[in-house]
Amino acid sequence: MTAPVEDAALSEAFQGRKVLVTGGLGFLGSSLAHRLVAVGAEVTLVDSLIPEYGGNLENIRGIEDRVHVNIADVRDPHSMKYLVQGQQYLFNLAGQVSHIDSMRDPFTDLEINCRAQLSILEACRLNNPEIRIVFAGTRQQYGRPDYLPVDEKHLSRPVDVNGINKMAGEWYHILYANTYDIRTTSLRLTNTYGPRMLLKHNRQGFVPWFTRLALLGEEIQIFGDGTQRRDFNYVDDVIDALLLVAPDERTYGEIYNLGADEIVSLLEFTELLLELAGKGRYRIVPFPEESKKIDIGDYYGSFEKIRTEIGWSPKVTLEEGIRRTLAYYRDRLEPYLT
Amino acid sequence: MTAPVEDAALSEAFQGRKVLVTGGLGFLGSSLAHRLVAVGAEVTLVDSLIPEYGGNLENIRGIEDRVHVNIADVRDPHSMKYLVQGQQYLFNLAGQVSHIDSMRDPFTDLEINCRAQLSILEACRLNNPEIRIVFAGTRQQYGRPDYLPVDEKHLSRPVDVNGINKMAGEWYHILYANTYDIRTTSLRLTNTYGPRMLLKHNRQGFVPWFTRLALLGEEIQIFGDGTQRRDFNYVDDVIDALLLVAPDERTYGEIYNLGADEIVSLLEFTELLLELAGKGRYRIVPFPEESKKIDIGDYYGSFEKIRTEIGWSPKVTLEEGIRRTLAYYRDRLEPYLT
Repeated sequence: MTAPVEDAALSEAFQGRKVLVTGGLGFLGSSLAHRLVAVGAEVTLVDSLIPEYGGNLENIRGIEDRVHVNIADVRDPHSMKYLVQGQQYLFNLAGQVSHIDSMRDPFTDLEINCRAQLSILEACRLNNPEIRIVFAGTRQQYGRPDYLPVDEKHLSRPVDVNGINKMAGEWYHILYANTYDIRTTSLRLTNTYGPRMLLKHNRQGFVPWFTRLALLGEEIQIFGDGTQRRDFNYVDDVIDALLLVAPDERTYGEIYNLGADEIVSLLEFTELLLELAGKGRYRIVPFPEESKKIDIGDYYGSFEKIRTEIGWSPKVTLEEGIRRTLAYYRDRLEPYLT
Repeated sequence: MTAPVEDAALSEAFQGRKVLVTGGLGFLGSSLAHRLVAVGAEVTLVDSLIPEYGGNLENIRGIEDRVHVNIADVRDPHSMKYLVQGQQYLFNLAGQVSHIDSMRDPFTDLEINCRAQLSILEACRLNNPEIRIVFAGTRQQYGRPDYLPVDEKHLSRPVDVNGINKMAGEWYHILYANTYDIRTTSLRLTNTYGPRMLLKHNRQGFVPWFTRLALLGEEIQIFGDGTQRRDFNYVDDVIDALLLVAPDERTYGEIYNLGADEIVSLLEFTELLLELAGKGRYRIVPFPEESKKIDIGDYYGSFEKIRTEIGWSPKVTLEEGIRRTLAYYRDRLEPYLT
C-alpha cells in the first residue's frame, strides 16, 4: 500500500522534528506514532493509561524503542506545561470519547474535554506560541442532521454531554488561533475504525464493539431496524488527514469534516463485517427507550472542504479497511480484550 | 407603566410559588426579584456577592424583607443541591459575564459558566426533576454575524472564552430537556441595560461603563469609528421575557433570541445617552490592536421566533429606557461606584 500523503513531503515536514501526541497510546495516537517514527520524527507520546480509556502499550509494539512514552494526564496542567515546551507539533488527540460515560459522569468528561484543552492551549500560548496544533474534533457535535451530507456550516446541536464538551474544546482551539495566532486546526472525525481501536468494552461506539463480537464469533445486537446510515473512515486515512493539514498554513484556524464516499447502513456494515470475519451473527432488537431519545437518525458528512482546499480524500474502501482490521486483531486479540 | 405581561397571568403562574434565582442580587436577578415579589412569589436569591461581579445588596432595597437571600456560590455543588429542592421555578441567571475576565482567567469562567451549570442541572435531575428552569444565554456565542438580523439558525462561532463557555452552558440545559425531560428554556440575551446594572468597572461591556461616565460627566472613549450597530433591551423587557416563557410549556427545550426594533450605532447610543444625561462628552479613539481582532462588526438579532411563537416583543424605547436608567442612578449612584 502506498500512503496517499507522499513520504517525501512527509519527511520534509516531520523528519527530525519534535512531535508531541496527547492520547499517544490510544487508537489514533499510536497509529499516528507509527507513521511519524517511519519518517524520522522525534515523537513523545503522552497518555494516562487510564484502564477504561483507549491507551494500550500493545499499540506501540515494534516502535517502543523509537518513541518517548510519558505517562501523564492531560488534566495535569503542570505536566502539560513542561511537555509542550520545545515541541514543533502537537497532535492533540486525548479525549474522553464515550457518549455513555459522558452522561454517567459529565464532570470527568468536562475536565478532560474542556478544562484540559484550555490548559493545554494556555500552556502553549505562554510557553511555546510557535507550536503547531491539530485537534481531533468530532461530528458528534452536530447532533441530528437537518440535511445530508452534513457540512461545516451545519448547526451544532449536540445530543450528549460529550458532544457539548468536544464542541467547546474545539472552539477553544479556534479561538486561540483567532485571538492569539496560535496555529491550530480542528478535524471533525466521523466513525473511525481500524487496528488498535479499543475493544474491551462497549462504551466507545458500535464499530469497535461489533468488531470484537465478530472476532469472537458472538451475537451482535443492532438497535432499531439497522437502516441508520453512517460514514466510516479507516484509521490510515484519518492519519493522512492529520499529517496533511499539520504543515499546511492554509489550515490555521480552520475546521474540516472528514467523511467517506461509501455510505452504508448499520445492517450493511454488520453484514460485511460478519462476512469478512467468517463467523458471528446478528439480531435486530428494539431501541432501548434511553437510546431512542438521542438517536440522530442518518448521519454522513461532507468532506468537500478538505478535499477541494487541501486535497484529502479517503483511499481505503470499507471492505479493505475491515479486512485489515480483522487481520490485525487475529494475531493479537488477547491484549485488547481486557 | 403597564407591564406587557399582564399581572393576572403573572399572579396565576407565580403567586405562592417557590422561585429560586441564581445571580439573584445581580442586575437581572434583582430586577426579576422585584417583579416576583410584587406578584406574591416566595423568592430565594442565591448570590456569591463576589466583589468583582454584579451582586449588590442595594439592588434589593425595598424588598429585602420579602425575599430570602442565600449567600452561596453556584460552583458549590453541595449548596446548590440543597437549594434547588422544593423549588418550582429556577431562573438560572448567575454567570461570569465579562469578556475581558474570561480571557484573563479562562478557568474561572469555565468553572462558573460550564461546570456550575452542569452541577445545577445534575442537582435538579437528581433532586427536583419537576423544576422549571429558564437560563440566561447570550448572543455572544454567535460571534461575527454572517447575516443580519441574526436568528437562532445562525452558526455559533464565539470569539471569546466567555462565548464558548456560555454556549456549552446553554447546551447542557437543552440536553437535559431532550434527554431527561427537565423543563428548560434558554433566552439568548443581547445588550441589556437599565437600573441595577454594575457600574463599578469597565469589564462588563460598554453600556454600563458609558452610563457611569455619563452620570459622572466624564469623557467616553469610543473605539473605531462608532458606526458598529447594536440592539439594546431595557431590563424590564427582558424580565417580561423570562416571566413569559417560564410557565409556557411550548418553550421547553427551546432557545429564543431577544432583540429590539431600534438598531443604533455606538455613536448614536452615546449621543443619546449624553443628551439625556445633560453632561459628559465623547471622543473617538483608534481600536486597540487586541480589540480589533475580536470585533464582531455590526450585530443585531432577530426576535421573530419569540415574537410569533410566544408573543414577546420589547416595549420600552431606547430613549425611555435610558431616561429611566439615569433617573434610577441619580438618586443612588454611590452604592454602585465602588
